[in-house]
Amino acid sequence: MTIALDLARRIGALHYEGLPADALHWARVGILDYLGVTLAGSREPAARLALEALGTPAAGAAALFGMSRRVGALDAALVNGTASHALDFDDCNNTFGGHPSAPILPALFALADESGASGRDFLAAYVTGFEVETKIALAVHFHHYMKGWHPTATLGVFGATAASAKLMALDDRRTATALAIAASFASGLKSNFGTMVKPLHVGHCSRNGLYAAQLARAGFTAGPEAFEHKQGFFNVFNGEGTYDASRIIARWADPLDIVSPGIAIKQYPCCGSTHPALDAMLELARRHKLAPARIERIDAWTHARRLEHTNRPDPRSELDAKFSLQYCLARAATDRKVMLEHFEGKAHLDAGVRALMARVHVAPYTTEQFPADNHFAAEVRVRTTGGEILTAKVDQPLGRTSSNPLPLELLKEKFENCGLRVLRAEQVADLYGATQRFDELPDVRELTGIIAAPAPRARRGARLAPA
Amino acid sequence: MTIALDLARRIGALHYEGLPADALHWARVGILDYLGVTLAGSREPAARLALEALGTPAAGAAALFGMSRRVGALDAALVNGTASHALDFDDCNNTFGGHPSAPILPALFALADESGASGRDFLAAYVTGFEVETKIALAVHFHHYMKGWHPTATLGVFGATAASAKLMALDDRRTATALAIAASFASGLKSNFGTMVKPLHVGHCSRNGLYAAQLARAGFTAGPEAFEHKQGFFNVFNGEGTYDASRIIARWADPLDIVSPGIAIKQYPCCGSTHPALDAMLELARRHKLAPARIERIDAWTHARRLEHTNRPDPRSELDAKFSLQYCLARAATDRKVMLEHFEGKAHLDAGVRALMARVHVAPYTTEQFPADNHFAAEVRVRTTGGEILTAKVDQPLGRTSSNPLPLELLKEKFENCGLRVLRAEQVADLYGATQRFDELPDVRELTGIIAAPAPRARRGARLAPA
Repeated sequence: MTIALDLARRIGALHYEGLPADALHWARVGILDYLGVTLAGSREPAARLALEALGTPAAGAAALFGMSRRVGALDAALVNGTASHALDFDDCNNTFGGHPSAPILPALFALADESGASGRDFLAAYVTGFEVETKIALAVHFHHYMKGWHPTATLGVFGATAASAKLMALDDRRTATALAIAASFASGLKSNFGTMVKPLHVGHCSRNGLYAAQLARAGFTAGPEAFEHKQGFFNVFNGEGTYDASRIIARWADPLDIVSPGIAIKQYPCCGSTHPALDAMLELARRHKLAPARIERIDAWTHARRLEHTNRPDPRSELDAKFSLQYCLARAATDRKVMLEHFEGKAHLDAGVRALMARVHVAPYTTEQFPADNHFAAEVRVRTTGGEILTAKVDQPLGRTSSNPLPLELLKEKFENCGLRVLRAEQVADLYGATQRFDELPDVRELTGIIAAPAPRARRGARLAPA
Repeated sequence: MTIALDLARRIGALHYEGLPADALHWARVGILDYLGVTLAGSREPAARLALEALGTPAAGAAALFGMSRRVGALDAALVNGTASHALDFDDCNNTFGGHPSAPILPALFALADESGASGRDFLAAYVTGFEVETKIALAVHFHHYMKGWHPTATLGVFGATAASAKLMALDDRRTATALAIAASFASGLKSNFGTMVKPLHVGHCSRNGLYAAQLARAGFTAGPEAFEHKQGFFNVFNGEGTYDASRIIARWADPLDIVSPGIAIKQYPCCGSTHPALDAMLELARRHKLAPARIERIDAWTHARRLEHTNRPDPRSELDAKFSLQYCLARAATDRKVMLEHFEGKAHLDAGVRALMARVHVAPYTTEQFPADNHFAAEVRVRTTGGEILTAKVDQPLGRTSSNPLPLELLKEKFENCGLRVLRAEQVADLYGATQRFDELPDVRELTGIIAAPAPRARRGARLAPA
C-alpha cells in the first residue's frame, strides 16, 4: 500500500463521534484564534495586494474576511489565507515547526461557504488536516525546516488538501490522488521571510490544497507513490537519509497532534522568541504597578539562539520592532500590555518608550539559570529608582503547549482586540458566540455570515496611527 | 547586485528592435507550434478537468483555447497551459531539459487578451522569458533534472514571470521582485509523470508566473536574494555544490537560447525517444512504398538509455502506445505517417498493426553504429518478403535543433492537423495567416479572436475513435 493511500484510509476513518473531547476543545480554540487574527490581518497590505493582483475575481459564495464581498472558494482561500498569517499572530505547533491552522481553515471555510457543512463535519475535517500535516512534519523534520523550506506552506498544503478532501467526503482513492497532486504544488522558500511573500505562502498553499481536492473530485489522475517514489516528495524535498516515513504511521492519532503538543497561541503580536521575556516583564509590571519613571534598569536573559534575531536595540520599522526584544520589553513595562497597535505606524518611535529602551539590557542565559535543553525560557530583572530588585522567571511562554494553555479569558481578549479592528462590537460578540456552539451549528455559514455582513467602518480602539 | 536584479536589468534591456532576425523567426515558429498543440490539447481530459475543478471562474477577457468562453487571465493561463502540454506534443529545448514555450505563452496570450499588446512587444517578451528560463537551467542542470524536479515547471515559472513582467513593462525593481516571488511558487515533481498532473504543472507554473508579475506590479515585496540566499532557490532546490550561478550571465543572450540550440519541434505525437527511428522508418516506407504485407522483419537500433522506456512490445493503453517503439514503428510502416489519431481510443489494438508489431525487433545500438556521445540516433533495417534489405540511418531527429530544422511545410502540416481537430478550416487558415504577419499585428487580440470565435463542432479528419 502506498503512503498516500494509507493516509487516505486514515483520513477516511476519523469521524467527529470518535474524537476525544480535548481534540474538539482545541479545535474550537484554534478556530476562535484563527477568526480573530484573520480579521485583523485582512487589513494588512499583503492580503489587500494579493486580492488586487487577482484582477477581477468572480463573485461567489465564499466570504472574504473583513470585507462585504464574496468570491469563489479558491480565491477566498488565497486571500483569507494570506490575511491569516499577515500579522504572524496565528497559532503555532511544535511538531509542525510552523503555523498549523492557517493553511487549513481558509480552505475549509471557503469550501463550507460554497457547499455547506455542519459544525461537526467541519471540526472533524480540521482535526484531520492538522493530524496529516503534523505527522508528515514528524517524518521530515528538522532537516526539512533547516534546509530552507517554509513548512507552514510545504507541509501545510497537505493539511489543506486532507481537510478539504475530508469535508468533501472523497473516497480513499480520490483522497490519495488529492495528496499526490498536492505534492506537486508544495512550495515556499525561507529566503522570502520578512516580506509579504511569507503570508502569501499560506494563502497559496491553502488555495492549492483546496484545488488539489477539487481536481481529485473531478476525476484527475496522479502518481500513486507521491511520497515514497524515488522522485517523490520525500526524496526531492528532503533527500535520502534525511527523513523517516515510518514516523507518520507510528504516532498516528496517538495522541492527536492537536491534543499534544497541541496548539500554541501567540499572546503578543511580535516574534515568538520575545514571548517568555514578555510574560516575565508583564508579570512584574502588573504586580508592582511599574511605571517607566520608576525603572532604573531592566535586564533580560533569553536563549542565545532566540536572542540572535531579537537583539535589536534600535528598530527602524514596525516590522523591525516586532523582532526587537528591547522595544517589546520597554513597551510592556510602559503600557503593561503588548498589542497590535504597538507595531503600527510610528509607535516604535514613541519618545517615552525609546527613553526606557536605553535602560534595557539583554543577554543570553546561562545553564545556571535554565537547563541547557530549555530554549524557550526567560528571566527578567528590574532595578527600581528606589533601589528595589524585582525578578521573574518563565520556563515557557504562556500558551505554548496544551499543558501550559493560555487562559480562556486571555484568548477571548485577544480575539476581541483583533475582531474590533474590523467589525462592530455586536458582530464580534455574535461571532464569539457562534464559536462557542460550533459543534451544534447545522451550517457553518451561520458563522461566516456574521463576518461578511456589510459593516460600517469599524471602531479602531486605541489605534496609534493610521493603517 | 543580486542575481534577481541583474536578471531584471537584462530583461529590461532586451527589445524587439535589437533582436536578431533568426530569434524572431524561431519565436514565430514557437508561437505557431504552440497554437496548434494547445488547440489539440484543449480537448484532453487534463485541460477539461483543470477547468471544471476551478468551479465557476469569472467571465473575463482571456480566450480559452478551443472554447467560446473567455475567463480571467490567471484562469486562462492555467487551463491553456495545461492544454498546451496535455499531448506532450509541444516544443522542447536541449538547454532547458523540458518544454520551453508552454510555460510562457499561455501567460502572455492571457495577459495580451486582457491588456492588449502589439505583436512586436509580444515577441520580445517571449524571447526574453525563453532566455531567462533556459539560462537559469544552464546554472542548475542536470543535477536539477536528475533529482526529480520537473524543469518545465520549476524553471518555466521564471520564464512565465519574466515574460509577463516584460510585457507589463515593469521597472527593474519590480521585475526582480516578481522573480523572487516566483521562486516561492516553483514546484512540480517527476513522481507525477505519466499522469494528468504533468501537464497541470505547466498550467500551474504559467498561472503562477503571471500572478507573480501581477503581485509585483501591485506593490508586493519579496526577498531580494531569491536565488543566492542560503535558503534561496539554488541552495534549496539544488543544494550547495550542484549549481553554478555564474553560467546565467556568462552565456546571457550569446547566443540567445531560442536561436541556438533553439526550439525543438516534435513531429510525432509520441515519446521523443522514438523520433529518430520513426524518421528512418518513414523514410524507408515512403521511398519504397512499403506495405505491411511486403515486410518480413523490421530491426531498429536506438540509444540504450532511450530504449529503456520505449521497449514496449505490448502497449495496453493509448498512453502506453506513445512510449512503444514497436507500436510506433509498425504504425509508421503501415500508415506512412504518425498522427494524433494513432494514439487514441483503440488504435493501438488495430489487428493489422499488431500483426506487424510481432515482426519488429528493437535493440540498443553499438559504438560501431554511432559515436558513443550521440544518444539521439537510430538505424532501421527492413527485410522484405522478396528478400530485399533496406536500411536508413538518422543522426538526430528532424527538428531537434535549429541546425536541423523541421521544414516549414511539415511544421504547417502539423499545425493544420492539430488545428482542424478543433476549428473550422477557414479559422485554421486565418490563424496561420495571423502567425505569418505576427510582427505587424497592432494588437495580438486579432489572433486570439480567431481561436475563441464560437465555432460549430469541428471536423475531425480521419479520427479512428471517439474522443
